[in-house]
Amino acid sequence: MPNSAILLISCPDRSGLVAAITDFIATHQGNILHLDQHVDTLENIFFMRVEWDLAQFTILQSDIATHFTPLAEKFSMTWQLHFSDTRLKMAIFVSKEAHALYDLLARWQSGEFAADIPLIIANHPDLKPIADAFNIPFYIFAINKDNKAETEQAQLALLAQHQPDFIVLARYMQIITGEFICHYPQRIINIHHSFLPAFIGAKPYHQAFARGVKIIGATSHYVTEDLDAGPIIEQDVTRVTHKDSIADMVRRGKDLEKTVLSRAVYYHLQHRILVYNNKTVVFI
Amino acid sequence: MPNSAILLISCPDRSGLVAAITDFIATHQGNILHLDQHVDTLENIFFMRVEWDLAQFTILQSDIATHFTPLAEKFSMTWQLHFSDTRLKMAIFVSKEAHALYDLLARWQSGEFAADIPLIIANHPDLKPIADAFNIPFYIFAINKDNKAETEQAQLALLAQHQPDFIVLARYMQIITGEFICHYPQRIINIHHSFLPAFIGAKPYHQAFARGVKIIGATSHYVTEDLDAGPIIEQDVTRVTHKDSIADMVRRGKDLEKTVLSRAVYYHLQHRILVYNNKTVVFI
Amino acid sequence: MPNSAILLISCPDRSGLVAAITDFIATHQGNILHLDQHVDTLENIFFMRVEWDLAQFTILQSDIATHFTPLAEKFSMTWQLHFSDTRLKMAIFVSKEAHALYDLLARWQSGEFAADIPLIIANHPDLKPIADAFNIPFYIFAINKDNKAETEQAQLALLAQHQPDFIVLARYMQIITGEFICHYPQRIINIHHSFLPAFIGAKPYHQAFARGVKIIGATSHYVTEDLDAGPIIEQDVTRVTHKDSIADMVRRGKDLEKTVLSRAVYYHLQHRILVYNNKTVVFI
Amino acid sequence: MPNSAILLISCPDRSGLVAAITDFIATHQGNILHLDQHVDTLENIFFMRVEWDLAQFTILQSDIATHFTPLAEKFSMTWQLHFSDTRLKMAIFVSKEAHALYDLLARWQSGEFAADIPLIIANHPDLKPIADAFNIPFYIFAINKDNKAETEQAQLALLAQHQPDFIVLARYMQIITGEFICHYPQRIINIHHSFLPAFIGAKPYHQAFARGVKIIGATSHYVTEDLDAGPIIEQDVTRVTHKDSIADMVRRGKDLEKTVLSRAVYYHLQHRILVYNNKTVVFI
Repeated sequence: MPNSAILLISCPDRSGLVAAITDFIATHQGNILHLDQHVDTLENIFFMRVEWDLAQFTILQSDIATHFTPLAEKFSMTWQLHFSDTRLKMAIFVSKEAHALYDLLARWQSGEFAADIPLIIANHPDLKPIADAFNIPFYIFAINKDNKAETEQAQLALLAQHQPDFIVLARYMQIITGEFICHYPQRIINIHHSFLPAFIGAKPYHQAFARGVKIIGATSHYVTEDLDAGPIIEQDVTRVTHKDSIADMVRRGKDLEKTVLSRAVYYHLQHRILVYNNKTVVFI
Repeated sequence: MPNSAILLISCPDRSGLVAAITDFIATHQGNILHLDQHVDTLENIFFMRVEWDLAQFTILQSDIATHFTPLAEKFSMTWQLHFSDTRLKMAIFVSKEAHALYDLLARWQSGEFAADIPLIIANHPDLKPIADAFNIPFYIFAINKDNKAETEQAQLALLAQHQPDFIVLARYMQIITGEFICHYPQRIINIHHSFLPAFIGAKPYHQAFARGVKIIGATSHYVTEDLDAGPIIEQDVTRVTHKDSIADMVRRGKDLEKTVLSRAVYYHLQHRILVYNNKTVVFI
Repeated sequence: MPNSAILLISCPDRSGLVAAITDFIATHQGNILHLDQHVDTLENIFFMRVEWDLAQFTILQSDIATHFTPLAEKFSMTWQLHFSDTRLKMAIFVSKEAHALYDLLARWQSGEFAADIPLIIANHPDLKPIADAFNIPFYIFAINKDNKAETEQAQLALLAQHQPDFIVLARYMQIITGEFICHYPQRIINIHHSFLPAFIGAKPYHQAFARGVKIIGATSHYVTEDLDAGPIIEQDVTRVTHKDSIADMVRRGKDLEKTVLSRAVYYHLQHRILVYNNKTVVFI
Repeated sequence: MPNSAILLISCPDRSGLVAAITDFIATHQGNILHLDQHVDTLENIFFMRVEWDLAQFTILQSDIATHFTPLAEKFSMTWQLHFSDTRLKMAIFVSKEAHALYDLLARWQSGEFAADIPLIIANHPDLKPIADAFNIPFYIFAINKDNKAETEQAQLALLAQHQPDFIVLARYMQIITGEFICHYPQRIINIHHSFLPAFIGAKPYHQAFARGVKIIGATSHYVTEDLDAGPIIEQDVTRVTHKDSIADMVRRGKDLEKTVLSRAVYYHLQHRILVYNNKTVVFI
């Protein structure tokens, strides 16, 4: 795998944006591997993800940001620059349910996720054997309503030692406060077991059963202070019938949860997601 | 197509129900074509749909109900008896959007719906040419907030002349009052252009766009007094991305609406739907 | 709707392609509305679709091709230039089945297809009433094995009078010869009622039933001389069970056929499809 | 979970079958939990799965078969009797790919599969650490073309010691001979990484990429002597585009393979599958 640079850009739309950005790359001998752009014509916002091969690029990797800054300023860009050879660090939060954790770790072990996992944080000890089998440090914080503020501070202190780039809530089942979220804005990925915005909050399969829906779903999203209302990254669904009990929905929903969460993690790791107006542009 | 009888049954669950019902059929030389049953173990309710060939059946078609009544009473059954050679009458309500109406009529003309369509009721004249092309009487009622009560009465009077078995709201876009609904309980089928319970009410595609969902859907349901909250018959979804404008969602959603509505009509015509607790059992 | 230009390009991949093309547009004050590109890294082929607003464009619409030619030659491009205000002409071929024709015409009438339909060609008279209802000339050619060569010549002669841009086979059910196809290369769209390459040829639902598959599908593709083996444009599927008879598969498959064919027509009309190596790039 | 009896029946269709079977159950105080039946009207074959609670059943569990035999003989039934409290034994065969094995074992550990796994057989040592983590004996047989006959005999000898009820090929990637299969007829479940009957044999994702399909799939089936041609149990698909490389298809297909294989195992464990004419009836 050759090293490549990835630029994520958003800015007011105007003529000449793609030409200016791709000219910057071409002038310095970069070969574009992937280019996606989108214009929100209602809001007049331009979005772009461009990835180019650094093999022949004439600007040093460490100098690219400096060279790109004048262009970015000219067009009032909000931008991120990433390199494909930089492994992100991903912390995982879990509770008692094993399926999402197993799935994440099996993918990670097989090389599907080019990331490091410095630690797993849990509010129960149940999943420690799984963390042990994969040789990942496992920390237990018995968080509850009464100790939430100080326990989150302790979690943040531990995280500060490990410096994760983002956090994955693999059925963590705890509401995270705004105090915590503001340390990882648009960097906490949750999986909710319904097709949001239907069935926000607790026990969505019970809600789905009570309402008699014919389809259940799962939604991965970035966590914001509004419960289950953050920018949606990915969703998927499966059909159910009157024959499916709540237990059947829980069992079948697990397959959705695993897949939908892992896709969000994959897109995040590949810097394919742009967030704006509480929505996402996902360049797949 | 041989004529067949269809029994739809619900009652408290207990041992011997299936044996008693199928013995009634077998004793009189009926050959079962389809049998589906379901038990809601939480509510302890038994549901059954059984269809049998009448060719050799030793009870006259007109006497079956009388002969079945003692059994029904013994088990406290709620039951319906239908015959496959009875064509139902279906009234259609429309507004300005053509796609659902065209789809229903094309299916009807091809023989997919074994039903008669005595009339189409609209609140705008736009779709009259379509009704004319299919030779179906088309009545316009310029209903609005101020004249709703008396206009619904006029609609009911017209319907009373035609005696439809059920009503299909093919994107009718008007809220129907409880006064009207009580004349056709569990016999008015609506198509709502979202995966309920998400995006109840007006402009669901606009709501979906604003929320940034990655999946849009459509839901057919029986109409009750609670807006978009009646028993769900069928749902389906399709994926969308950030590239889909509201207009794209509207265009793509039409395919869902057509299909999901027509499936509900098909199941209703085949007496495959049982309603209880604001949910449906659909024996497909 | 403002008028826009659409360039479809394929050429050997090299650095600077996107920059050169978008610079051509930006230099002449074109604002890019959509841009998609793809590189087949195995074959080293670059593909691009770019659409830009002509409102401020400083080159006359009629001169754009001339101005673009030097750039195209420099990069050895194969290219097409289209304008969004040019309505394509679409001929439709049918046999006896109405559903695909009805669906195409209802979409066309509602404005979903910005195209003209100069004629419908059939090998049976059954669907003439539908063509009449939509005021489209309907021609019958009683084609069979023995008269195929001369009948196709007669069809071509009639088509030559109407100059359609492309042909849609809406369940035409006749094999078209290479003699005919060569007049409309990559411009004849067929719908096959299976998920190709499974169940090529006649009676695919019967084949699917016999094999006991749990999913049936439909495939739209450009017609080539190899039966059901042309470049696939779009596919979709639906689940079936042991309960689905062949008649059920036929009925349920119609919904797939309609949708999958209409999507292909829509993409073709919007110049979203590039064909190479018997495959398609569809920029959705 | 109360203990229940499950009868799987197939026989020539005739009047009175359901009544006779359910009367047998009701007469002995069995309460039916689930009942599904199906008639193949083309072949005139009746299929049934009925499950009833044994709590009040007046025949001893060990005597049920004896009591049922006269009825079975009267109607020329092929039948199986199972009990929900009997845990099946499942052997797993693997090669080098971990995803399907991980998924099976995680489901098993979570209690989703009520089965025992006496052993895992592999043709490579790669996955031994996974077996070790789950404390399951792992045996390596370096099978190849030249030693296939004697190696299969050795495998059979090992299996004979463990007496598995069925075998799951979790991406085993070896062709099994008829000599082997005849020891486990309709009891070897394979996962093939295509929507069969498309792309039989080796490297189906490469075949799918070359054909340019827009949908890829996976199929679980019982193994027969004809390669990838056995009775299909379950299939599922996912959409792909021109952007998906073969590596992307392999990665994304793994999610299908895991899910489709696990569903087949689940149905098999619950005795929901009847095989006839190289097809399955799956009572879900």
